[in-house]
Amino acid sequence: MSSDLEQYVSQLLEEGRMAARSLAVVSRAQKDAALRAAADLLMREVASLQAVNAEDCREAESAGLSRAMVDRLRLTGKRIGEMAEGLRNVAMLPDPVGEIIAGWVRPNGLRIEKVRVPIGVIAVIYEARPNVTADAAALCLKSGNAVILRGGKEALRSNVAIHRLLVQGLRQAGLDERCIQLIDTPDRAVIDLLAQAEGKLDLIIPRGGEGLIRAVMARARVPVIKHYKGVCHTYVDAEVDLDLALKVCMNAKVQRPAVCNAMETLLVHEKVAPAFLPQIAALLRQANCQLRGCPRTRAILGEETVKAATEEDWYTEYNDLILNIRVVASLDEAVAHIAKYGSAHSDAICTTNLRSAEEFCRRVDSSAVFVNTSTRFNDGGEFGFGAEIGISTDKLHARGPMALPELTTYKYIVRGDGQVRA
Amino acid sequence: MSSDLEQYVSQLLEEGRMAARSLAVVSRAQKDAALRAAADLLMREVASLQAVNAEDCREAESAGLSRAMVDRLRLTGKRIGEMAEGLRNVAMLPDPVGEIIAGWVRPNGLRIEKVRVPIGVIAVIYEARPNVTADAAALCLKSGNAVILRGGKEALRSNVAIHRLLVQGLRQAGLDERCIQLIDTPDRAVIDLLAQAEGKLDLIIPRGGEGLIRAVMARARVPVIKHYKGVCHTYVDAEVDLDLALKVCMNAKVQRPAVCNAMETLLVHEKVAPAFLPQIAALLRQANCQLRGCPRTRAILGEETVKAATEEDWYTEYNDLILNIRVVASLDEAVAHIAKYGSAHSDAICTTNLRSAEEFCRRVDSSAVFVNTSTRFNDGGEFGFGAEIGISTDKLHARGPMALPELTTYKYIVRGDGQVRA
Repeated sequence: MSSDLEQYVSQLLEEGRMAARSLAVVSRAQKDAALRAAADLLMREVASLQAVNAEDCREAESAGLSRAMVDRLRLTGKRIGEMAEGLRNVAMLPDPVGEIIAGWVRPNGLRIEKVRVPIGVIAVIYEARPNVTADAAALCLKSGNAVILRGGKEALRSNVAIHRLLVQGLRQAGLDERCIQLIDTPDRAVIDLLAQAEGKLDLIIPRGGEGLIRAVMARARVPVIKHYKGVCHTYVDAEVDLDLALKVCMNAKVQRPAVCNAMETLLVHEKVAPAFLPQIAALLRQANCQLRGCPRTRAILGEETVKAATEEDWYTEYNDLILNIRVVASLDEAVAHIAKYGSAHSDAICTTNLRSAEEFCRRVDSSAVFVNTSTRFNDGGEFGFGAEIGISTDKLHARGPMALPELTTYKYIVRGDGQVRA
Repeated sequence: MSSDLEQYVSQLLEEGRMAARSLAVVSRAQKDAALRAAADLLMREVASLQAVNAEDCREAESAGLSRAMVDRLRLTGKRIGEMAEGLRNVAMLPDPVGEIIAGWVRPNGLRIEKVRVPIGVIAVIYEARPNVTADAAALCLKSGNAVILRGGKEALRSNVAIHRLLVQGLRQAGLDERCIQLIDTPDRAVIDLLAQAEGKLDLIIPRGGEGLIRAVMARARVPVIKHYKGVCHTYVDAEVDLDLALKVCMNAKVQRPAVCNAMETLLVHEKVAPAFLPQIAALLRQANCQLRGCPRTRAILGEETVKAATEEDWYTEYNDLILNIRVVASLDEAVAHIAKYGSAHSDAICTTNLRSAEEFCRRVDSSAVFVNTSTRFNDGGEFGFGAEIGISTDKLHARGPMALPELTTYKYIVRGDGQVRA
């Protein structure tokens, strides 16, 4: 690893630390002004951003990137408008910094406050989606954190252009420009350097596929909050409103199959399987969804229409129009299946039985557990958080949708008048 | 590394996982019964515990362990009584599991609850203090976590004996015996295996000196909540009640110098230094405290009585009757000193000026910041938490004193009646 690169990263981290110190104590008004100014600049520069982005897209196409990837890379006028709108939305959200989470008085008169404060310096590492540049920067800025952005190399020109406008917004609001830094080298060794910057970087948030996350984790000495996989289940219980279950399961599978909170495996109680499976299979086939099933599922639906699910299939996040189906003998069996094959992301039960609902909620240990509704609702926006930087499948610090409060920590402030410890 | 050892650790982790699943849903009454039964057993077995412990102590002495270490290892009747009392205290604390941290209804009628749940399987790695075996097990059990205990090899016989009683308590309460497991091999390779058990172990809490913590961190792929160092400061401001400052500073330094929240460095504003320093120096000398100072401190107190502090001294956690003293020109300089040399553990200001107090609290980024009181109060018991498993100098998940709620995570439960996402 070149010492130039080490020097470069080390300087980014140092400047981030200095910026974080000043940012931790600025007013909400100043942070919001920077976000609104950046939003205005984005709207003013729609044409020039699209021109720069077109170069990224051309290069990506000639490098043979898939159509889906080039599509994610492309900045249409609508997308730039959404980015600007996103910045304005974050400006409208309450500032988490300074919230007194709890406060109490001790018998000796000490007054203790638990106060929300920024985490410090956060690195966000993502792929070739230039809108993440604005989204991630906005959330980190609003929560008082200095951010170091590292996007996919295919989007570098677009990211540099967006970053320039974000920094201009900071400047207009009188904030330290180093609050939002962008890594402009495509060298992947940067990720290793960030991952090992113990004590200099407070948190890494990787946003992207499993490969990216594993690359960050492989050598991480800095805390990482990650989202590995969404292998989500819906369990249709023995006592159930079949119409509701049909509607909920179809939504979980086909409304947007490419995302992490879409259902990958349907578990059906054996009592309702003969009635339920043919109905849902017909709807799924209409939606061009391929089915893979256990032997009992195939016996009910016909072996010619349902492929045999392999052991590996049950662990797989397809992110596609493919669904595993298993018939189970009990709620116990469903819970055990989810514990073994699931990713603790989002799991649902459809039932009219109170005890089944309670048992499922208690025993399924996922970031969000759903009763009679779609796993697709595991989302910061749908939860009412107003924004989201990701969905954590970790258990420490943040779990499920991560928004502004999850980008903060706390400290205690203890006020006395001469108390000493005996 | 022997595959026998790998097999051993892998089985501990698997059994821990199974125990954690059942423990997550048991009643508070059952957990408390197990703690009380273990307390009774400890009191009944005082003599046999002391006999076993005497063997550990004899071996430690002949191995040449320091008197302080043998002292920490020794189980007196009083200490066994305190262990039993500790278990009973934890039984009396509220159960954090199941607490609804927040709950709201979305416009579409979805009812969302954020519910406190156990983390899962926690490893606690500690040194030769057998009382930690009971303390750590009690806190993990009460918070619904399966625990894997790994104490110092010098205390192995004592730990095995205490562990046997804890397990008997579990059995009497009808709980899974695998909720509390003890590693009974002294092989240090176990620590590496635990640190790398990604996905199988949810959290490691090292309790002990910096060497132990660095050994855990060196190869950690599992989340660790740690407490590195307590390099704590007290800043005596220009406007100050000198008597209060004397009392607070003396308490912070000499009441128990060996602990993490004791003061290591005193910062004094230049305006009060000529009046304050001679007074505190006299008291410190009476308490046999050695002084190391900056040039201005030495000019005021005399170079013959104050050693020159080296650059390294300012970074040092003495845990002893040694104090660094620096005269500063402003609050800014004090804050900058703390940011550079401190460990973000506990820092205090003595002042009568409101603006100084507020500035200090806002700008010092430590787990606890104190105004006109002693850093020694950074402690779970003193905060009113009823117990403590350590003081985190990390920022993620838990910061400052860690008690029962800090040993939990949360999940979301979302209840609907057929809502789907559009």
